[in-house]
Amino acid sequence: MMGERVRVGVVGASGYTGAELLRLLLAHPRVDITSVSAQSSAGQPLATALPAYFGLCDLTLETVDTAAIAPRADFVFLCLPHGASHDVAREFLGRGVRVIDLSADFRFRDPKNYERWYGVPHKAPELCAEAVYGLPERNRREIAPARLVAAPGCYPTAVQLGLVPIVDGGLVVPSIIADCKSGVSGAGRTAKREILFSEVAGGLRAYSVVGHRHTGEMLDQLSRAAGRDVRLTFVPHLVPMSRGILATIYAPLAGAATDEAVRAAFETAYTGEPFVHLLPVGAEPDTLHVRGTNRAHIAVSADPHGGRVIVRVAIDNLGKGAAGQAVQCFNIMNGIDETTALGGAAIFP
Amino acid sequence: MMGERVRVGVVGASGYTGAELLRLLLAHPRVDITSVSAQSSAGQPLATALPAYFGLCDLTLETVDTAAIAPRADFVFLCLPHGASHDVAREFLGRGVRVIDLSADFRFRDPKNYERWYGVPHKAPELCAEAVYGLPERNRREIAPARLVAAPGCYPTAVQLGLVPIVDGGLVVPSIIADCKSGVSGAGRTAKREILFSEVAGGLRAYSVVGHRHTGEMLDQLSRAAGRDVRLTFVPHLVPMSRGILATIYAPLAGAATDEAVRAAFETAYTGEPFVHLLPVGAEPDTLHVRGTNRAHIAVSADPHGGRVIVRVAIDNLGKGAAGQAVQCFNIMNGIDETTALGGAAIFP
Amino acid sequence: MMGERVRVGVVGASGYTGAELLRLLLAHPRVDITSVSAQSSAGQPLATALPAYFGLCDLTLETVDTAAIAPRADFVFLCLPHGASHDVAREFLGRGVRVIDLSADFRFRDPKNYERWYGVPHKAPELCAEAVYGLPERNRREIAPARLVAAPGCYPTAVQLGLVPIVDGGLVVPSIIADCKSGVSGAGRTAKREILFSEVAGGLRAYSVVGHRHTGEMLDQLSRAAGRDVRLTFVPHLVPMSRGILATIYAPLAGAATDEAVRAAFETAYTGEPFVHLLPVGAEPDTLHVRGTNRAHIAVSADPHGGRVIVRVAIDNLGKGAAGQAVQCFNIMNGIDETTALGGAAIFP
Amino acid sequence: MMGERVRVGVVGASGYTGAELLRLLLAHPRVDITSVSAQSSAGQPLATALPAYFGLCDLTLETVDTAAIAPRADFVFLCLPHGASHDVAREFLGRGVRVIDLSADFRFRDPKNYERWYGVPHKAPELCAEAVYGLPERNRREIAPARLVAAPGCYPTAVQLGLVPIVDGGLVVPSIIADCKSGVSGAGRTAKREILFSEVAGGLRAYSVVGHRHTGEMLDQLSRAAGRDVRLTFVPHLVPMSRGILATIYAPLAGAATDEAVRAAFETAYTGEPFVHLLPVGAEPDTLHVRGTNRAHIAVSADPHGGRVIVRVAIDNLGKGAAGQAVQCFNIMNGIDETTALGGAAIFP
Repeated sequence: MMGERVRVGVVGASGYTGAELLRLLLAHPRVDITSVSAQSSAGQPLATALPAYFGLCDLTLETVDTAAIAPRADFVFLCLPHGASHDVAREFLGRGVRVIDLSADFRFRDPKNYERWYGVPHKAPELCAEAVYGLPERNRREIAPARLVAAPGCYPTAVQLGLVPIVDGGLVVPSIIADCKSGVSGAGRTAKREILFSEVAGGLRAYSVVGHRHTGEMLDQLSRAAGRDVRLTFVPHLVPMSRGILATIYAPLAGAATDEAVRAAFETAYTGEPFVHLLPVGAEPDTLHVRGTNRAHIAVSADPHGGRVIVRVAIDNLGKGAAGQAVQCFNIMNGIDETTALGGAAIFP
Repeated sequence: MMGERVRVGVVGASGYTGAELLRLLLAHPRVDITSVSAQSSAGQPLATALPAYFGLCDLTLETVDTAAIAPRADFVFLCLPHGASHDVAREFLGRGVRVIDLSADFRFRDPKNYERWYGVPHKAPELCAEAVYGLPERNRREIAPARLVAAPGCYPTAVQLGLVPIVDGGLVVPSIIADCKSGVSGAGRTAKREILFSEVAGGLRAYSVVGHRHTGEMLDQLSRAAGRDVRLTFVPHLVPMSRGILATIYAPLAGAATDEAVRAAFETAYTGEPFVHLLPVGAEPDTLHVRGTNRAHIAVSADPHGGRVIVRVAIDNLGKGAAGQAVQCFNIMNGIDETTALGGAAIFP
Repeated sequence: MMGERVRVGVVGASGYTGAELLRLLLAHPRVDITSVSAQSSAGQPLATALPAYFGLCDLTLETVDTAAIAPRADFVFLCLPHGASHDVAREFLGRGVRVIDLSADFRFRDPKNYERWYGVPHKAPELCAEAVYGLPERNRREIAPARLVAAPGCYPTAVQLGLVPIVDGGLVVPSIIADCKSGVSGAGRTAKREILFSEVAGGLRAYSVVGHRHTGEMLDQLSRAAGRDVRLTFVPHLVPMSRGILATIYAPLAGAATDEAVRAAFETAYTGEPFVHLLPVGAEPDTLHVRGTNRAHIAVSADPHGGRVIVRVAIDNLGKGAAGQAVQCFNIMNGIDETTALGGAAIFP
Repeated sequence: MMGERVRVGVVGASGYTGAELLRLLLAHPRVDITSVSAQSSAGQPLATALPAYFGLCDLTLETVDTAAIAPRADFVFLCLPHGASHDVAREFLGRGVRVIDLSADFRFRDPKNYERWYGVPHKAPELCAEAVYGLPERNRREIAPARLVAAPGCYPTAVQLGLVPIVDGGLVVPSIIADCKSGVSGAGRTAKREILFSEVAGGLRAYSVVGHRHTGEMLDQLSRAAGRDVRLTFVPHLVPMSRGILATIYAPLAGAATDEAVRAAFETAYTGEPFVHLLPVGAEPDTLHVRGTNRAHIAVSADPHGGRVIVRVAIDNLGKGAAGQAVQCFNIMNGIDETTALGGAAIFP
C-alpha cells in the first residue's frame, strides 16, 4: 500500500478529539478525509461546529451512518462516547473498513472487565479478543496488521509510559500511586456546569477519587507488564488549562534496585522511540512543552527521604493521549513512517 | 487588652502576602495600621505598589527601619524573604514589639535544622527555642502568650491539617506521600522568567522534586505529631492559577484502622475548629471554594485498591497558608475572638 | 429603622450574582438572611449548590414561593433571568416587601422600550414608572424611599460611570463608542457550550456585536444625562477571566472642551463618592484591582491624534456591576451607611 | 532556486517569536536551519532554553556574530529588540545574506519617523528606502525580490487587514478607532513584574493608551492606503491569554457607502488570499480559532445606531503577527509556494 492514499472517515468529528484528529489528518500526506460525521451536528458545515477549520475543510458533518460512510472509507477513526462504538465498529469491520476506536469500548480483552468498570453491557464481546491495545511503545508489532485498534485512554497512556520500564523490569514494588492532573478538554465538549469557565478557572480539585474508570485499564495493562497483580491508587485532578496531562507516579524501589538502574531502564526502553523522551537530569516535564504534539516528556528521581521512585510524565491528553496516538497507530497499520504528520514541535507558549 | 486597638506595622508590605495581610487588617476592628514598609519600594505611596488600595489606604511605604517603626507599633508582621527576618525580628523584640514572622526563619526549633534546609546561617539562634510555631489547630495555647510566632509555610499548613489527626492517632503508617499543587502567587512577586504568564498559563509542572525546603518543616512537625520519625515524599507542582494549594496526601492504613476510624479522627480533631471543615461524603475540596479565606476544606477516602487513605486539603496559600493564619495567630495573641476579620466567605467565582 | 436588623430573602441564590450577594450580606451587620431560594436547586442545602458556603450558611434552598418567603422578609433581592421578575416583584410588593431587582425587568421607565430590546412582553408595566434606576451616583435621592429598585446592568454601570460627567456637562459630542470587555461570569451559571472552559480559555471574541440588549439601557440613560439623543456603538467582548468589566469609551471632544476640563468634570463628579475613584495620571484601571469590590477605577486621556477622549472604567461585573451595587442601594434604602459591608479591598492577586 | 534548500539562521532564537519561527521552519521542507543564536543564552543547547525542542533540534545557541553565522546562511530572520537590528542587518546584507527583520527597525521608509516613534537614533538609515514592508496582502510583488524585508508589527498587521480594503476604497471616513486586545506573549520573554502570571491572570487592562509605538506604523501605512492623512486612535489592552490579537475597529461610513459595499470590498480584497478569511455572517472571529496559524479571521458589521462600520480581526500575534508572516514573506522571496509550512489548522482548544 506504500504510496497510495488512504480514504479516511472521522466519526464523532465535532468534539475536541475529533478536532485534533482533523488537524493531524489534514496535514497527513497519505490521507484523504472523505467524511466527517457527528450525530448531534449533522447537516452543519464542519467549519460551523469547528471554526478553526474555516477555509481549510469544506466538508459537511454527516450522520453516523456506517452504510453511507463505508463505501468512501478504507479506514475510520471513532471518537464516540463509550458504549457507542460497539455497534459502529462491528458494522465498519463487517464492511471491510479498518477501525481505530478512541473510546474505552475495546480496551479490555475481557468484556466482563469492561462491564465492571463502565457499568454498561458490552454489545460486541466477540471483538474484544481481536482488538489490539494501541500503545505503540508496547504493541507495535500487534498493531501493524490489526483490523481493530483500541486507542488507550489519556491517563493510562501517561501512567504506562512512566511505569512499564520499571514495573516490567521488577525495579519497583508494584504498589503504585498515580497522582494525575488533566486539562479540561479531557471532560469533553458537551455542556456541563462543572466545566464552565467560571467553575474551573482559578481553582483546582480532585475528582472520581476512588473508582475512576481508567483505573481498570491501568490495572489490566500494568498487571500484564509486571507479570503479576499490581496495586494502584489513581487520583485524577482537574487543572485550569485546556490541554495536557501530568502524571506524577510514586513507587517503592524494589530491594536491590538503584537509582541508576531505574534511569537505565528508561533509557533502554525509550532509546529509539520517536515520541518518548527521557529529559536530562534537572529538566522537568511541563505539559506546555508537549502541547499539540504526540510526545511524552519524562523525568525520574529517587527520593532518599521515602525510598521511592518519582516519575513525572507530561503528554497532551488530546495528542499522545488520544488523536496523536491514534494517528501513530494508523501509520503503523498502513505501513507508513510512524512519525508522518506527527513530527511538529509543541506550540509554545 | 480587650477593646483596645493594636498598633500594627506590616514589614514587606508590597508583595502578595503583604497585600493579603493589608486586606485583612484594614477590615479588622481592633487594628490600626501605623506603618507599611518595603525596602525596594520605599518612598512610594502604597497604592502605587498595590493599586487595589487606591482610595483605601493613604500610607506611604517606608524603609525597613526598626528604630523608626517600633515606636508606632505594638505588633509587627514580617513578610520578608527567608534569611531577612533574623535581625529584624530580634530588633523589634528588643524594642518591646511582638512579632509574627511569615518567613521560614523561626519555624525550626533547632537552628541547625533550619541551616540544613535553607542553606544559610541562622543569625538569631537564641530566638529559636522561644518562637512558637503558629498553627492554631495544634498550638493555640502556646501561641497566646508568645512574643514571637513563626507562621507555618503554605504547603506544611495544608499537609499538617490533612495528616495530624491520623498520624497522631496512629491510624496510618507514617510513610507518606504528599502530592501538592500550588497557585503561582506562592512564588512571590519578584520578576522571574519561569513565572511569567506565558511560561505558566496553559501548562503544568512539578518543581523542586526532591528537596523542597518545606520538606524539612513537614518532617519536623509531623514527626512530633507521630511521636516517631516520619518518612515523607513531598512533590510540589505549579498550577496556572494565582492562589490556592491543594494537597493530595497518601498514607497506608495501619493494621487495625478502618475507614470509619479515619473519618472519626478528622471529625474529632476539627469539630469546633472555626476554619477547618471536613466536607460531607461526596463533596470534593476545590481551591476555588476557599479563595480569599482562612478556611481549609478537607475530604478523606479509603482506597480499596491500594489499602491507603487519600486525604485532600484545599486552602488559599495566601490565606490559611500565610496572611489569614497570621491574623488568626494575631487574634489569639491579643485575646481577640479568633475569627475576627476572618469570617468572610470565599470570593466565588 | 436605624439599628434594627432587616430580614432579607435572596431569590435566585444559586447563581453567580446570588453567590456574591450572599457573600456581602453574610458580612452585613444589619442583615438577617431569612431565606435563600432557587427554583432549579430547591431542596438542596445552599452549601451543596455553593460549596464556598460550607460551614458558613446552613440554609436550604427553597422554591421561589412569594407567599412562603414574604412573611419572613422585609426585603428581597431578585437574581432571576429577565422576564422572571415581573410577577415575583409584583407579588412581593403586594405583600409589603421592598424589592431590589437585579434583572433588566424594571430598568426601563417605558415598558415598550423594554419589550423592544428584550423581545418579551412586560407583565408588570404598571410598576415601571415607580421603579427607580439604582445607580446611586446618579439617583441616590430617589433610591432612598423606593419600594422597587432596578439595579443597573453590568455594562451600563461601567459605561455610565465613565460617561455621565462629560456627557452631562456637554464636554463631548454624544457620538460614542463603548468597547467593553467582560469576564465569563457575566454569562451566568447555566451550562452552555460557548462558555465551557476549553471554549474560552486562551481565546477572545466579541459577541452580540450589533444589538446587545444593554445598548437600550445605555441609550435610555445616557440620553437623559445628555439632555438629547445619544448615538452609541456598543461592542461587548468575552475575556478569559471569571470576573470584571473593562469599558474603553471613545467620544469626540466638544468644540471648546479641553483635556483639563474633562479631568475636572470627573473630579467634580466623583469627589466624595466612596466607590468611584479617578486614578492619578499614569495609573491604569485593571479589573484585577477591583475584583470582589464595589469600586470603580477610572482613567481618562485625551488623544491628540484623534481629537477624542478615551475613558477606561474597571469594575467587577458581580460587584459594582451587580451584587455590590444592589447592597449599596439596599443601604441607602434602609438609612444605613452606604459603605456598610462594602468597604473591603480587592482580593489581589 | 526552485527545489534547492535554503540555509537559514535564526537570530534571537530563544524568545517567543524565535520559538515560533523554529516551529515553522523545522517543518519547512525547503529549509535547513544552520544556526540559532541568542546573545543572552549563548552556549546553551537550544532545548535548554526552549524545552519544547527537546528531541527535535540539537543545535546550540550561538552568540550573535554575523561573521560566524553568515558563511552558513543564505537567509536570516532577526528576532531582536528594536534598535538591535540596524547593525546586524547591515552586516548580513553586506555578506550577501538576505534578511527578514521582525523588529520595528526597518518598518518606516523615513528614518526620522522611526526615530520619532521609537526615540532612538536610526543607525542604518541608508537601508530604509530599500527595506520592503512585509505585508504580503499589500506588497507581494515588492517582497519577492527584496534583500531586506521588515515584517510588520502584530497590531499593525491586524489593523491593516481590517482596514485597508475600506480605507483604500474610500468607503469609510479615515477617522478611525482601533481598540486592540493582545495576549501576553506580545510583551516578550524577559522577566518583568507586570507580566508575571499573578499580575495578569484574572485581570484586564489597557496600556500605552496614548502613544503606543505601533501607532506610528499604522498611521504611516494607512495614510498610504487611504491616499491621505488618517486620524487614528489606537488603544492596546493586555488580555490573560498567551497568544492572540483581536482588533475591534470602528470607522464612520463614508457618505454613499452601504453595508453591502463594505462587505463586497472585503470579499474582493481577500478572495484568493490563502490566509485571510472573511467569516460568514453570524460567525465571530476568536483568537482561539487562529492560534498557532498564519490566518486572519475577519467579521464586519454596520451599526445602525452609530453610522459606523465595526470590523473584528483575529490573528495569532506570534503567527500572522510575527513568525508566520515572516515565513510567508520568506516563501515569496524564495519562489516557494506561499503556503508552505503554513497550511496547518489552529490548535483547538
